Amino acid sequence: MGSKGYTDPETMYRQYIDCLNNRSLDGLTAFVAGSLTYNDSAITLEDYQGLLRQNFHDIPDLCFNISLLVANNGHIAARLKFDCTPTGEFMGIAVKGKRVVFHENVFYHLKEGLIDAVWSVIDLESIRKQL
Amino acid sequence: MGSKGYTDPETMYRQYIDCLNNRSLDGLTAFVAGSLTYNDSAITLEDYQGLLRQNFHDIPDLCFNISLLVANNGHIAARLKFDCTPTGEFMGIAVKGKRVVFHENVFYHLKEGLIDAVWSVIDLESIRKQL
Repeated sequence: MGSKGYTDPETMYRQYIDCLNNRSLDGLTAFVAGSLTYNDSAITLEDYQGLLRQNFHDIPDLCFNISLLVANNGHIAARLKFDCTPTGEFMGIAVKGKRVVFHENVFYHLKEGLIDAVWSVIDLESIRKQL
Repeated sequence: MGSKGYTDPETMYRQYIDCLNNRSLDGLTAFVAGSLTYNDSAITLEDYQGLLRQNFHDIPDLCFNISLLVANNGHIAARLKFDCTPTGEFMGIAVKGKRVVFHENVFYHLKEGLIDAVWSVIDLESIRKQL
């Protein structure tokens, strides 16, 4: 799918988000390149899967909701909404089981239909204000 | 220009950023609707001009640099880079004249060629780490 370039970027992205929400980390190979940059740090797909595995561990009810989606052939931009209950710390903030609602504004670069760069900003300030 | 819908969204957005970098707050009427929502709060164009005037006061060397730009007819998404020297507090953080580099990932909704909604997330965490 993603790797063969048959899918338009918006459809590919919605499938990627479904893959995350199904906790199908092995399925990410259809959407994410073997090596990528994350906020300008070079990581591997295995690292990326590890980050997500940690997120799912820290936030058992984590669900990715697409609020806005803008795409062209090279880039995808998404505003994601989260309404969830991190059990302990989330990104250095001691949430400790409180329900929080926050957003992530994130950009992706696509190479041959696969994500090979991510630039994410999460609204941690709004999480702090809810605690 | 923006208001007559003759300009494609990317060109309009680059003109909007030039307008900001020229400190031409009166010129914003060509790009921003009279009433808009900013991170889901209803504000007026005058409020928006006031927010920017405050930013320019707090950060005399403020310059908006477009790192990424993704647009369609209804929405614009931009990753903006800032390399600047806030003189006092910026968004509650006491920067006090230190040079900081940070990003904003921001989405806009367009109505008849004018911005009528903004959803912004600024990477305040990276500012804190630089102090």
